[in-house]
Amino acid sequence: MPDDNNSNPLERLAAMLDDDMRATNGVIIRRMQSPVELIPQLATYLIAAGGKRIRPLLTLAATHIYGGDLKHAQKLAASVEFIHTATLLHDDVVDESLERRGKEAANLVFGNQASVLVGDFLFSRAFELMTECENIQILKILSNASAIITEGEVLQLSAAGNINTSMDDYIQIITSKTAALFAAACEVGPVLAGAEQTQAKAMHDYGHYMGIAFQIADDALDYSSDRETLGKVIGDDFREGKITAPILLALKNADAAESEFWARTLVKGEQNDTDLKTAQDILNKHDSINGSLALAQEYADKAQLALEKIPESPLRALLHDLVPYTIFRKA
Amino acid sequence: MPDDNNSNPLERLAAMLDDDMRATNGVIIRRMQSPVELIPQLATYLIAAGGKRIRPLLTLAATHIYGGDLKHAQKLAASVEFIHTATLLHDDVVDESLERRGKEAANLVFGNQASVLVGDFLFSRAFELMTECENIQILKILSNASAIITEGEVLQLSAAGNINTSMDDYIQIITSKTAALFAAACEVGPVLAGAEQTQAKAMHDYGHYMGIAFQIADDALDYSSDRETLGKVIGDDFREGKITAPILLALKNADAAESEFWARTLVKGEQNDTDLKTAQDILNKHDSINGSLALAQEYADKAQLALEKIPESPLRALLHDLVPYTIFRKA
Repeated sequence: MPDDNNSNPLERLAAMLDDDMRATNGVIIRRMQSPVELIPQLATYLIAAGGKRIRPLLTLAATHIYGGDLKHAQKLAASVEFIHTATLLHDDVVDESLERRGKEAANLVFGNQASVLVGDFLFSRAFELMTECENIQILKILSNASAIITEGEVLQLSAAGNINTSMDDYIQIITSKTAALFAAACEVGPVLAGAEQTQAKAMHDYGHYMGIAFQIADDALDYSSDRETLGKVIGDDFREGKITAPILLALKNADAAESEFWARTLVKGEQNDTDLKTAQDILNKHDSINGSLALAQEYADKAQLALEKIPESPLRALLHDLVPYTIFRKA
Repeated sequence: MPDDNNSNPLERLAAMLDDDMRATNGVIIRRMQSPVELIPQLATYLIAAGGKRIRPLLTLAATHIYGGDLKHAQKLAASVEFIHTATLLHDDVVDESLERRGKEAANLVFGNQASVLVGDFLFSRAFELMTECENIQILKILSNASAIITEGEVLQLSAAGNINTSMDDYIQIITSKTAALFAAACEVGPVLAGAEQTQAKAMHDYGHYMGIAFQIADDALDYSSDRETLGKVIGDDFREGKITAPILLALKNADAAESEFWARTLVKGEQNDTDLKTAQDILNKHDSINGSLALAQEYADKAQLALEKIPESPLRALLHDLVPYTIFRKA
């Protein structure tokens, strides 16, 4: 088990769970097969492109901590990744995205129609996989999380371009669209192992707060020039008029000219080539990126606090270290 | 219980199951609620527009026949209708439909984005509802059917405009996209009641063959001038280049000019205002509508044969009569 101190906590977690992660990837590859060729083609395009696999790692880690059935955990981990991938496919159709995971977005390569339907396929396949674990409580947790995710997506769609969105509204949106799946991915571990309700609650809370912190950081990164220097696309949220943490912090302190700028670019959606740079300058003026990361830190602290209720172990220590990493990552 | 001989078998079935159908509609209305207003708005738009409710009626009938738990059956019936509605919402986005159930299509009224996400919500909610019945076998049946439906939709998308599609390919597409849910809707009844495996198989087969017959008839109706006189939109499949039973029968007997016509209109998708009329004329010349209905009849016969394996009852008699009705309906 490589445990190189130069690697980041996500890499160390993946290394510690290497066998299970390989088995999970095997499940992912096998279960996205279909005699309908377009399905594995499109699914492979997106899933093979990688992504951090943070959600399946959480499910595997949470199962290990409580000694649950690892064969079942691998199926649930694959299931969670399928749900996540399905929402990415549908998001990219909804947002008319150009790029995903450093590649041209699937909707552009295969068409919106295929992206909608293959998303549906992965979603159905996720439920099929879950049922194989024959645990009703787990099915309830994951189906409930799925419904909440889609509520969050619809809420986000309704809030786009609405600068009257409050910070509470924003937290509600990201809690639904991101934290619900993080929480469920963690909670199924102790439930699978038949652990006490307090343990399931602690793991749920860990995932919940980390999901919120993760998404706030993600929304800050979408304006970060550091990320730009890594060759990543930035400014997607700006182009889509999404009202995220950095925008909310800048709006609070906006002068008249800035208010006019946000109204034109985010509410009316009238944007020219220099507007993203101007938006970044305004965010920097109000220190809104750092302000967002400070907000993320508040949730990160709660995530680490939740971990104190679970038994000490090397995995718990890694989950602890994973929290700041998800906030201060660059990509 | 009204049992008017002038009413059609679907109306008589709905009358016989009136209490359960009302309760199911109650579940449908309650469970499509969400604090996110756009969700019930869009769902109500589509679900309140009606539709035949044939799938939930099948679930209720199949449960009654075997004396299963009706509270659970109502949830499963709502679940099946949610899955069906979700696929309609996504289909209309994929097909760029203009109309559904006699109203402007939801994607035009609310946008593609909302249609995709609310479809996802209904799909998730369907799974939540199912889990409340706490029966793993039922969850397996319905999640498997969902995956098969989406495979069928993708297969249909891949086959559009391909006049090399065979009749076998076509039957495979409609088996997946339509018959799988009919079969599952029927099968969950005996499974819920803990009936013997042979009974679950018989109800499954009934739904399976009726679903195929239903879809072939539906595809024939899409070119039927009778339906046009009722003020229904026809020709959607033609505009989308779908290779359905009437087209396959006409292609088999096409002369050179007709082959050229189908290649232009269906393969290249070059259509003008008079082409639908020309297509109907060619189908009439080859008697392809009647040929399609004769094909539907073959599957209808198998559906009725499957029913012979289940215990005699007034409900069985109605399910028997329902089969020809689904073929020879006008709308």
